[in-house]
Amino acid sequence: MSELITIPARHGKAVRLASRQSIRIVNTHGNQVVDTWAFSAADLREFMSMEHARAYIDRIRPKVGDPIASNQRRPILTLTEDTSPGVHDTLIAACDIWRYKGLGCAEYHRNCADNLREALAELDLVPPECPSPLNLWMNIPVVNNDGIQWLPPVSKPGDYVVLRAEMDCIVAMSACPQDMIPINGFNPVEAHFIVT
Amino acid sequence: MSELITIPARHGKAVRLASRQSIRIVNTHGNQVVDTWAFSAADLREFMSMEHARAYIDRIRPKVGDPIASNQRRPILTLTEDTSPGVHDTLIAACDIWRYKGLGCAEYHRNCADNLREALAELDLVPPECPSPLNLWMNIPVVNNDGIQWLPPVSKPGDYVVLRAEMDCIVAMSACPQDMIPINGFNPVEAHFIVT
Repeated sequence: MSELITIPARHGKAVRLASRQSIRIVNTHGNQVVDTWAFSAADLREFMSMEHARAYIDRIRPKVGDPIASNQRRPILTLTEDTSPGVHDTLIAACDIWRYKGLGCAEYHRNCADNLREALAELDLVPPECPSPLNLWMNIPVVNNDGIQWLPPVSKPGDYVVLRAEMDCIVAMSACPQDMIPINGFNPVEAHFIVT
Repeated sequence: MSELITIPARHGKAVRLASRQSIRIVNTHGNQVVDTWAFSAADLREFMSMEHARAYIDRIRPKVGDPIASNQRRPILTLTEDTSPGVHDTLIAACDIWRYKGLGCAEYHRNCADNLREALAELDLVPPECPSPLNLWMNIPVVNNDGIQWLPPVSKPGDYVVLRAEMDCIVAMSACPQDMIPINGFNPVEAHFIVT
């Protein structure tokens, strides 16, 4: 596969990667957060896990060259390229129906947790749970070793990351539909990816 | 229930709390990390979730007065008292067989993930997954908004926290058996709790 594929605004997409294939995920408009998950193709119960990944690299966000660990503490992806300033998030759960309810939504609001489920359903798969995602470009600084802030991305249009598969896996991505706080600049848009 | 119960060194314990009951968890010797989980009694698939809790309080560790959110973004526990300096961790996964394998253990090493499963099994329950725990007294500072360190607890013998149940729930605790890095001062010991 070598064509640029759209992750439609507020929706998710998933794709299978063979070990050593890479995926380039493009922040087409610069302001978009892309929640990202990876599941082992051999057993979906092994997946990229932020709480294991942080312990594996001794940092709260991966940088170029870092393996990203699964919940069985082995690399499932490696971050091999990043043209953006490297501001990504591992601390915050995917948005979900309860998040929007808490923000005052009376009606259904699209959300990343459902986008994960929809994206995997397109591949006839069901995620075993909604793991805490790698939130590409989500700008959540930790202040004074404790407080967190919710800021717009610092990336520019066309910035991309490349993630290399360290095992056969399924990568799922959600163009985050959050439009009630500034993490997408109040303007959720599409993003793109290409498998190489 | 109002007796002091031992969490044996390197093992786990679980207890049922009715809504508005509290549990006091005591760091008897001061150097011990206690991994802590909470599951809704009505549906174990709702549980205390660090990635949702951080978003709920806009901080990476709870302080006295803070509700601690479930994966359905409602308070499941509230931290109502803390005699220690408040250094707890929400960033790091429970230790598991793969952690010790990575540290060079050829044989089975007791671990917090299995302690959770054993503790719930004593109540004839099976956890739906091993959520990222609230690691009481685990000293994992974030340095320069990115790096993390692994340090011994700063608590003193007899320090305790009190957690109030905001719904009927099961609280599970593990006296962390980690003895290969300094987070328990290389000396895993027992801790205690009492339900009030």
